[in-house]
Amino acid sequence: MTRTPTPHDKFSFGLWTVGWNAVDPFGAATREVLDPWEYTAKLAELGAWGITFHDNDVFDFDASDTERADRVGKVKQAADAAGLKIEMVTTNTFTHPVFKDGGLTNNDRSIRRFGLRKILRNVDLAAEMGADVFVMWGGREGAEYDSSKDLNAAFDRYREGLDTVAAYIKQRGYDLRIGLEPKPNEPRGDIFLPTVGHALALIAELDNGDIVGLNPEVGHEQMANLNYTHALGQALNAGKLFHIDLNGQSGLKYDQDKCFGHGDLPSAFFTVDLLENGFPGGGPRYEGPRHFDYKPSRTEGIGGVWDSAKANMEMYLMLAEKARAFRADPVTRELMEAASIPELAVSTLAEGETLDDFLADEASFENFDAEAAGAREYRFVELYQHAMRHLIG
Amino acid sequence: MTRTPTPHDKFSFGLWTVGWNAVDPFGAATREVLDPWEYTAKLAELGAWGITFHDNDVFDFDASDTERADRVGKVKQAADAAGLKIEMVTTNTFTHPVFKDGGLTNNDRSIRRFGLRKILRNVDLAAEMGADVFVMWGGREGAEYDSSKDLNAAFDRYREGLDTVAAYIKQRGYDLRIGLEPKPNEPRGDIFLPTVGHALALIAELDNGDIVGLNPEVGHEQMANLNYTHALGQALNAGKLFHIDLNGQSGLKYDQDKCFGHGDLPSAFFTVDLLENGFPGGGPRYEGPRHFDYKPSRTEGIGGVWDSAKANMEMYLMLAEKARAFRADPVTRELMEAASIPELAVSTLAEGETLDDFLADEASFENFDAEAAGAREYRFVELYQHAMRHLIG
Amino acid sequence: MTRTPTPHDKFSFGLWTVGWNAVDPFGAATREVLDPWEYTAKLAELGAWGITFHDNDVFDFDASDTERADRVGKVKQAADAAGLKIEMVTTNTFTHPVFKDGGLTNNDRSIRRFGLRKILRNVDLAAEMGADVFVMWGGREGAEYDSSKDLNAAFDRYREGLDTVAAYIKQRGYDLRIGLEPKPNEPRGDIFLPTVGHALALIAELDNGDIVGLNPEVGHEQMANLNYTHALGQALNAGKLFHIDLNGQSGLKYDQDKCFGHGDLPSAFFTVDLLENGFPGGGPRYEGPRHFDYKPSRTEGIGGVWDSAKANMEMYLMLAEKARAFRADPVTRELMEAASIPELAVSTLAEGETLDDFLADEASFENFDAEAAGAREYRFVELYQHAMRHLIG
Amino acid sequence: MTRTPTPHDKFSFGLWTVGWNAVDPFGAATREVLDPWEYTAKLAELGAWGITFHDNDVFDFDASDTERADRVGKVKQAADAAGLKIEMVTTNTFTHPVFKDGGLTNNDRSIRRFGLRKILRNVDLAAEMGADVFVMWGGREGAEYDSSKDLNAAFDRYREGLDTVAAYIKQRGYDLRIGLEPKPNEPRGDIFLPTVGHALALIAELDNGDIVGLNPEVGHEQMANLNYTHALGQALNAGKLFHIDLNGQSGLKYDQDKCFGHGDLPSAFFTVDLLENGFPGGGPRYEGPRHFDYKPSRTEGIGGVWDSAKANMEMYLMLAEKARAFRADPVTRELMEAASIPELAVSTLAEGETLDDFLADEASFENFDAEAAGAREYRFVELYQHAMRHLIG
Repeated sequence: MTRTPTPHDKFSFGLWTVGWNAVDPFGAATREVLDPWEYTAKLAELGAWGITFHDNDVFDFDASDTERADRVGKVKQAADAAGLKIEMVTTNTFTHPVFKDGGLTNNDRSIRRFGLRKILRNVDLAAEMGADVFVMWGGREGAEYDSSKDLNAAFDRYREGLDTVAAYIKQRGYDLRIGLEPKPNEPRGDIFLPTVGHALALIAELDNGDIVGLNPEVGHEQMANLNYTHALGQALNAGKLFHIDLNGQSGLKYDQDKCFGHGDLPSAFFTVDLLENGFPGGGPRYEGPRHFDYKPSRTEGIGGVWDSAKANMEMYLMLAEKARAFRADPVTRELMEAASIPELAVSTLAEGETLDDFLADEASFENFDAEAAGAREYRFVELYQHAMRHLIG
Repeated sequence: MTRTPTPHDKFSFGLWTVGWNAVDPFGAATREVLDPWEYTAKLAELGAWGITFHDNDVFDFDASDTERADRVGKVKQAADAAGLKIEMVTTNTFTHPVFKDGGLTNNDRSIRRFGLRKILRNVDLAAEMGADVFVMWGGREGAEYDSSKDLNAAFDRYREGLDTVAAYIKQRGYDLRIGLEPKPNEPRGDIFLPTVGHALALIAELDNGDIVGLNPEVGHEQMANLNYTHALGQALNAGKLFHIDLNGQSGLKYDQDKCFGHGDLPSAFFTVDLLENGFPGGGPRYEGPRHFDYKPSRTEGIGGVWDSAKANMEMYLMLAEKARAFRADPVTRELMEAASIPELAVSTLAEGETLDDFLADEASFENFDAEAAGAREYRFVELYQHAMRHLIG
Repeated sequence: MTRTPTPHDKFSFGLWTVGWNAVDPFGAATREVLDPWEYTAKLAELGAWGITFHDNDVFDFDASDTERADRVGKVKQAADAAGLKIEMVTTNTFTHPVFKDGGLTNNDRSIRRFGLRKILRNVDLAAEMGADVFVMWGGREGAEYDSSKDLNAAFDRYREGLDTVAAYIKQRGYDLRIGLEPKPNEPRGDIFLPTVGHALALIAELDNGDIVGLNPEVGHEQMANLNYTHALGQALNAGKLFHIDLNGQSGLKYDQDKCFGHGDLPSAFFTVDLLENGFPGGGPRYEGPRHFDYKPSRTEGIGGVWDSAKANMEMYLMLAEKARAFRADPVTRELMEAASIPELAVSTLAEGETLDDFLADEASFENFDAEAAGAREYRFVELYQHAMRHLIG
Repeated sequence: MTRTPTPHDKFSFGLWTVGWNAVDPFGAATREVLDPWEYTAKLAELGAWGITFHDNDVFDFDASDTERADRVGKVKQAADAAGLKIEMVTTNTFTHPVFKDGGLTNNDRSIRRFGLRKILRNVDLAAEMGADVFVMWGGREGAEYDSSKDLNAAFDRYREGLDTVAAYIKQRGYDLRIGLEPKPNEPRGDIFLPTVGHALALIAELDNGDIVGLNPEVGHEQMANLNYTHALGQALNAGKLFHIDLNGQSGLKYDQDKCFGHGDLPSAFFTVDLLENGFPGGGPRYEGPRHFDYKPSRTEGIGGVWDSAKANMEMYLMLAEKARAFRADPVTRELMEAASIPELAVSTLAEGETLDDFLADEASFENFDAEAAGAREYRFVELYQHAMRHLIG
């Protein structure tokens, strides 16, 4: 049995995860919901290090200032009492009908202004809570109908919105970074910034992009038929992996938000391998929280809620242990060597080699034996199988 | 019946499209293959304006210099005789076994060097042919196995490779731009730069990224479960839509390369609407060729090859006519107005409005009636249905 | 503009369609909901012929007998007053928490018994309303977790449940047939009877399968990456197409329930072609209602609700007109002939030809010229393009 | 390390698997191909129990009778010498151009007759080789274009073809059963009998369906976005699981044919759990060969071919060991009990309970406490997590 998680593991949970009442598109709530501060205490007891929340996980959309302050205070107090860090705070710009066509890219300018103000207000809250990251999931930024958006204007507005939020953070001197959370669809037919790639591309065009990065979610990338670990790789390579959302998904369907590793175990293994061991040849590392954004399945009662919260952490720890052994195994190293994996970290042109030098190098082309090189072994299958031996063994 | 295409329509075809011999993973060739110059003449006759090719569509991987020059000369001659522009040339770094683990990101450095040299050589050819764009489809850059790549190194090498090619173009003073062609999978399990977003993100990090843009293919974006027209929108917004590959696909399966509009007609309609009419509020336009990258289905004989070549152009012309009428219709304009589409082109903050001004504007937040705004009508369904009336009507 | 629908067109709508309040997994209701009898009157006004409902569209799960009778009476009265047929009634075994693990295949026997009783009770209601079909959508019959079900027992129970309902219908002498509605996932991770095929297979094993058939929904088959028209073809061929659910979907994502033809227009065209014109060589026809099971998008207000209800019928009528012209066109017939389509209706063995005769026929094998036959033209692309000419033209 | 496989494990391989030359739609062969009898010997050495083949894996489409007999004889001899059973033989009706529109459902009747004769001829071969199963994969039976088939006629012809083959087997008195292999797409856009469900449904309508069952392939069901273990469950429940094709797939893309468990490990675990341990409540079992239908990835050389062949068997044995321990664990039994899994095997109506008895049982409905039942715990997440503990532990 795997050891119990400790705060040293940096596990954190969204309050909306354990706090989900299990309403789905075809079903009513199956669970009563506790107050947010009640979840906080219990998560600490299970070994979590941090919590995160949307404004409206804690107080209602139309809460009075007093009510807002009161409820936020109780969560902060509970977190402090339990020794939990509130590591990330985010704003809900998707539940209320006003956001039915989005916040930052709503066709209606007055709603865009309202949405942006709501975001700025909760940037203050994030700073007040001591959060490091402010996630922005633009779940309603998008369309079901190809005629319904001026796409060029939509990207302009998205950039304007993000730049305004980032400028505000800088103006106030907050120690906060923004983490964009891509998703391809659901609740909109096609969401803008559907993948990590699209978000990285938009960030590169921001004036204040230095404090804007990514919060990639496992299931979201998979809903675009993509490899999550590859997404983390590109985000790290770009210096933009600011936060992560771990969960489980079983292929191309609605957003399942299962426990981490439930459904897509081998992918989860290689994600943990990257998070714990880094790239084979070194390079940028992710040092932030191991944050779970999942939903206890609707069939579960409150017992199942805690089962599932624990399952996320236990899964991560089991995979981390396996991944460390996999990398430390000399057979692994031999197979990686045989596959020329370390060689990929060597630049293709030699240091100082000019274009002219390169063109003059007959060994690289004129005298290169392409048939022989085409016949070489990589043994990728054996290397993968060896990873499986460690995972299952 | 739609009018016959003319060179004014700027239709172009890859020689590998009509020239496909119809081998598939489970079947032998069903068609004999003509010489590339034979296709050239026929495409001109059908009304095409341009052609494109991979080096190895015209000459073999191991052709001698003489043979290479001879065959290229014949294609050029045929194109000139027919009045066709060779608008794009590209290199094949995917068919030969040497590239089985990729060209620019192969784990084997000697293969990366060979691949890069092969690319540079054909940059010369592209320039010699008078092409405007040099497409790079990294179909073998990727992996089937999560353990087989140092992902950080892979992105470093991809950047290095692209930057080297772009630097070479600049050094030689060629009037050429590079168009990256993303694809999520097939022939590799997970291809690097799986979507337009991922490619835009990498381009933003290049030293010579100014001459590197996109060549998005309809079916490729759809294989990532994404909306092609949205991809064009983001690429145009970023000033990076350098070329396009039009074809048809029926959902998440192998790369079908059907005729444009075959399978995904409404998406094709809105793509043409964007290409012909631009964004509703103006902005960047695509002015390049309407390039078809399709395959005549394996059931077709040579008659079917020409049927399908014509079908692509006819489809485009039919859709263009419908799209122009749709946009010109006053009812469309009213519905777009009712949906506040023009309003999305208005910046969210007023010109000159500072963060402090914005925060002080009580109308934007404190006095904003979110309930009323949440109840507003957009009539997106009616607008879409109106587009369908034009499309079908 | 297409003509106004009339009852002669046999269009019907679920009351839950126009009556959806637009709650989704990430958003609160955006529309107020009318009483079911209010929708009834309006649908008649728009040209509908029939309506359908789940028990709990009309009265609450825990309604008293009086309340139930009262509300059902009002709907019946409204339908009668408007001249609408209540053509189908169904039971909701998915919304209430008691069904969180299914009705007929719940692991908990007491819940299975309760579910079955709820179904039987509403079979009575269906008969009382004069419905022809009783649809059963087992949306909660399934699992998220591979360990959670005894699959053999689940299929045994599913059969038991269906056979019990069918036996009850026969015992009571009701003139009702059951229509199973397959769906691959959502709200469960994997739903039992995920496609038309799986449902047909189970029906074939029932004792009372003669009155059990299918109610295939467009989007549901597409969520299994399948061709809806092919599904209708197999169901018709098996004599089991008892009812249909028409709507629109844009690929592999959550269940969108858009208007018919919105997103997947060419597929909708060929569906209508089959429904209106039958198979090219004749054979079984679908004569039932053209039933829409869609949801007005969450961005729509009540105006958009009626826009969308009309859009479904208008789309069907537009496609029907095009499909009739397509089939009547002599060019179509020539192309179908050239593709040997009529020949597929000719049996492979001649009438009366025995196995021995067949084996003795050297023309069929020993002397057959496979190379020549392999080179024949079908011109499938031209035939499809010709369909597109009719659809768009 | 897992033990070495033995013939007792009943592992078998298609000769086309290790014998694949690694041509793919975008790449030339990367491996030289041995003679089929050479693979045979090596597979025996690795611990296989059986082999399988298509006619044209062993001899060419247009081989003379002598050549055919000679090559078949050598394979049989090699198998006998190595102690391998030739457990399944099948016919290739997909590679040659003549089958470009299918064999049994080709629009061209002369091709259907030819295809059927080719099949019958190889039924003789299967019988001669002592095979138990004759697999039929109708990979070319289908369409890319919705207009190209008379669907009703296609299903008629498919049934006619299957019934003719089955009748021939009976007439000749062969001890052979037919295993249909469903697939949703590739190489055709939409293949008829896309899933296990569709095939079961058609079998139920055959005259000679008693000897026709299924050969479900892991990746094929997954390409229809479906759960493979559920497919096996329905096939077993119907008494129709005659053979299996084990391999690995990573989601909705081209047919990857990776090693068993590579990509979809947790699904493979539950498949093995079913194959080795049966349903929790007993019932039909699969007793046939553990047959691998995979492809050594194109990056692999001949070393990688044997790595991958071994990986399939090793994976199966590792999973089998884990699955047995999972089921034997008392904690598993407690959790299954807590989830009421055994209760699903109890019929919903009591033995002898009539409809009238059931309707009279007030405990089942009138007095049933649905709220309490809706609040019950299943702990499905904990049970699944416990399976993962065994899998990884």
